[in-house]
Amino acid sequence: MAQYFYPPSVEALIAALTKLPGVGPKTGQRLAMYLLHTRAEDAQGLAQAILQAREKVRRCQTCGNLTDDELCPVCRDGQRDQTTICVVEQPGDCIVVEKTGQYHGLYHVLHGALSPMEGVGPENLNIASLLRRLQTGLVQEVIMATNTGVEGEATALYLARQIKPLNIKVSRLAYGVAVGGDLEYTDEATLGRALQGRLSL
Amino acid sequence: MAQYFYPPSVEALIAALTKLPGVGPKTGQRLAMYLLHTRAEDAQGLAQAILQAREKVRRCQTCGNLTDDELCPVCRDGQRDQTTICVVEQPGDCIVVEKTGQYHGLYHVLHGALSPMEGVGPENLNIASLLRRLQTGLVQEVIMATNTGVEGEATALYLARQIKPLNIKVSRLAYGVAVGGDLEYTDEATLGRALQGRLSL
Repeated sequence: MAQYFYPPSVEALIAALTKLPGVGPKTGQRLAMYLLHTRAEDAQGLAQAILQAREKVRRCQTCGNLTDDELCPVCRDGQRDQTTICVVEQPGDCIVVEKTGQYHGLYHVLHGALSPMEGVGPENLNIASLLRRLQTGLVQEVIMATNTGVEGEATALYLARQIKPLNIKVSRLAYGVAVGGDLEYTDEATLGRALQGRLSL
Repeated sequence: MAQYFYPPSVEALIAALTKLPGVGPKTGQRLAMYLLHTRAEDAQGLAQAILQAREKVRRCQTCGNLTDDELCPVCRDGQRDQTTICVVEQPGDCIVVEKTGQYHGLYHVLHGALSPMEGVGPENLNIASLLRRLQTGLVQEVIMATNTGVEGEATALYLARQIKPLNIKVSRLAYGVAVGGDLEYTDEATLGRALQGRLSL
């Protein structure tokens, strides 16, 4: 006897949802049921938001960050400190730095990190345009805010080697213990770096 | 100085994704970045699948299960045992029962369970049509496969009281230990029920 499954349109929806990162078959079913039962404007709103974002979003011609226009708001903003560029791997990293409220310079988004294992070389990242931005002589410091894993570190070192000959200061985020964090849960490598970089009180 | 955030179209996408159950701001951002960077056909495919499913899917006129047609495949299938109806809360529950390969009768989907706390009464569930189906005299047994929480139990008891006067057998899924499960991790209520319902070897 034929077993019954979801109707084709629901199976198609589950399959499409299951392609999302971190969404397995169970979560896919749950999300599909939600989308079928929620208000029509919520479900259609999500579909439209996906199509709209895909259509509108592009990379800023200067820094590579996501924008709906030719230039991103940071690059358009004449008030920002034009002498400093903070280099990050992903667009989301800019938001995190912005939220500190302590950085007022420009950004450059690499869209990844060097990874020989995955065949990502300098030519696959948004690096050429960074070096071009540094030709103007306006920039005095480049802050490497790539991730602190092997790939992020390698990328920071690679870029530092390219940039230093241009007589531009290259810096890296400080390593150390998290604010409000317990020492007990800090890994040894981080704690070691925090000791090396200890501050006088 | 103005803080920079995602462009409006990306913020709109994150907001729409964050409405999904179990998706918070962080996951919403991660899913949005995935949808922006994945292949265009995957992102558009998800948007289309949502719209298609919302347009096509309706409730089976007989059993209330999800279907792309007037009747669901089970209700259309003359080979299924027409004398037994398995009552479940949600469409997904039919799939779970089907996967056992041990049930060949019909289904009835309530689309919820009685819940005075949330204002869900019998009139808010797909119950009237179940009682109508039982008028034909063809059905000999109704199996209550509602969930085993307070609401599912209350719903099963309520329906049993409505159906028994029609001289139709009403049964409930057996309670007991899970197959392959450790006794150590079985809760007391379940183990108590398993003792009460013990089988002779």
